[in-house]
Amino acid sequence: MSSIHSVNRSHTHLAWDNSIPPVIRIESGDTVSFSCLDASNGQITKESTVATLSSLVFGQLDQVSGPVYVNGALPGDTLQVDVISVETADWGWTGLIPGFGLLSDEFPEPALKIWALDKEAGFAWFDKERGIKIPLRPFPGEMGVAPGKNGAFSTIPPYNTGGNLDTRQLGVGSTLYLPIEVEGALFSIGDGHAAQGDGGTAIETPMEVTVRLTVRKDRPFTKTPHFHTVRPNVNNEEHYGTTGIDSDIREATRSAVRNMINVLEAEFQMDRVAAYMLCSVAGDLRMHEVVDMPNYVIGMMLPQSLLRGPTSINA
Amino acid sequence: MSSIHSVNRSHTHLAWDNSIPPVIRIESGDTVSFSCLDASNGQITKESTVATLSSLVFGQLDQVSGPVYVNGALPGDTLQVDVISVETADWGWTGLIPGFGLLSDEFPEPALKIWALDKEAGFAWFDKERGIKIPLRPFPGEMGVAPGKNGAFSTIPPYNTGGNLDTRQLGVGSTLYLPIEVEGALFSIGDGHAAQGDGGTAIETPMEVTVRLTVRKDRPFTKTPHFHTVRPNVNNEEHYGTTGIDSDIREATRSAVRNMINVLEAEFQMDRVAAYMLCSVAGDLRMHEVVDMPNYVIGMMLPQSLLRGPTSINA
Repeated sequence: MSSIHSVNRSHTHLAWDNSIPPVIRIESGDTVSFSCLDASNGQITKESTVATLSSLVFGQLDQVSGPVYVNGALPGDTLQVDVISVETADWGWTGLIPGFGLLSDEFPEPALKIWALDKEAGFAWFDKERGIKIPLRPFPGEMGVAPGKNGAFSTIPPYNTGGNLDTRQLGVGSTLYLPIEVEGALFSIGDGHAAQGDGGTAIETPMEVTVRLTVRKDRPFTKTPHFHTVRPNVNNEEHYGTTGIDSDIREATRSAVRNMINVLEAEFQMDRVAAYMLCSVAGDLRMHEVVDMPNYVIGMMLPQSLLRGPTSINA
Repeated sequence: MSSIHSVNRSHTHLAWDNSIPPVIRIESGDTVSFSCLDASNGQITKESTVATLSSLVFGQLDQVSGPVYVNGALPGDTLQVDVISVETADWGWTGLIPGFGLLSDEFPEPALKIWALDKEAGFAWFDKERGIKIPLRPFPGEMGVAPGKNGAFSTIPPYNTGGNLDTRQLGVGSTLYLPIEVEGALFSIGDGHAAQGDGGTAIETPMEVTVRLTVRKDRPFTKTPHFHTVRPNVNNEEHYGTTGIDSDIREATRSAVRNMINVLEAEFQMDRVAAYMLCSVAGDLRMHEVVDMPNYVIGMMLPQSLLRGPTSINA
């Protein structure tokens, strides 16, 4: 029998650090609900103006809720994270923060947009006069586990153990796999996004998010975050995705492809040359995150329909 | 009245060079059919084995058919290329060529796969035993115009004037826009692909391809290849895409985003800050081509549905 746990919004931390004591201990297969402030840690509200951006305390950004200790989790295992529900607030914000973002040198002035999120209708107006509206596809921008390496690592960049993945495919119904590096895994989550393109800047929002956490002993090939998406998150198709995370985009891309080849070899006993060819002729290459320096997240995705053979990657 | 022209497979060239004399001259709005050998220029056939790869003459690869002179085309204009039909052969090949490709250092041995293309059923078996089949989505990997700069530029890398774009969105029904740099535009095409993932390595095949070429005087903002896709090429949705082409992936990404902002500003009179935010919350970032060194092709795509306001990007 699995249990339901909850973590309130005061239980946050600002660095991935294996010395942070867990806020709760759960069994593998249990479900946890987290109440999370937005990525400004409550500094931006629906009444904020652009002036708020100039007084932002950067050291408070991108807090995550947790960590959660999962009994039985050992280094070398994989943490399976099933995203059960994501409920956003009725408002969100998008900001141009000087010095942050792909074109920050070309957009030196701060800007802030406060969005009204019409959750019932499922969209937010970007520009009502022009008829431009953004479909709401909420997901947590941050999901990760503590690194094996001792020390405090900012929650702003993503790492091989996850964190600020900003991968919009990770909405309700999707599954994320994270490589565990410490006992108990020490999982945390945050950075609610009501909608996001590829690249990483989003409609930021507070959220209530529920995930199921399961320890997997049978996925030693998970060395970076992997994921399994559902329709209609991506292309109206199910996909299996691997990621590559590196400060060099080309190396991150190479890693994403190499990781997919490793999956095809481990799960499908596919010859590596055949696996490489399959990625070439059928894989998607997405730039999931290109703003949270110094690390980029590149994803390689294969349609699940290609892999419905005698075995399937899908657990 | 528009006319139909044809270019046979002997009219090819191996460099983008504005001094190559045109094979035909047409009026704007005319249609041209090209008969094209595969990207090995006929060196690989359906009877080839891996031994064929070791005798490949690299200087013969990636030939393009043309160039076609379009009357009235002037530097600063845009060439609109509507892809009318693409008919592949009943076979194709995928090769691991030593020294070529994203993971070439990890796959030093040559490999060659010859595919049977079941055009009627619309797929090719990758592995019949495992039930893995690849949907056929044919498109020309190379479409470009001559550069304004004098000299001979290899057809292997892509350029701002197009060429080896390897953008799988450019199938039948799509429209490509290329910036014209010389009188007559001097358009060429080649590199038939029966299917391709993102990244650029494909099922290579001979093809018969028909395009309509139209000179546009009203798109001065087209500084790199842009495109308009149709359902179901991408995500089962129409998209408008811009590209960035550079030897640095990050710069190519920045260029793709900047080019989309320029489109939103020029075509929608959208404020640049708003345009940047729209790209952030709703744009796709794809790696169209990461193998044809030294240049990468990164694409930013927006769903056309977002842009169905009082005006539309779609011509």
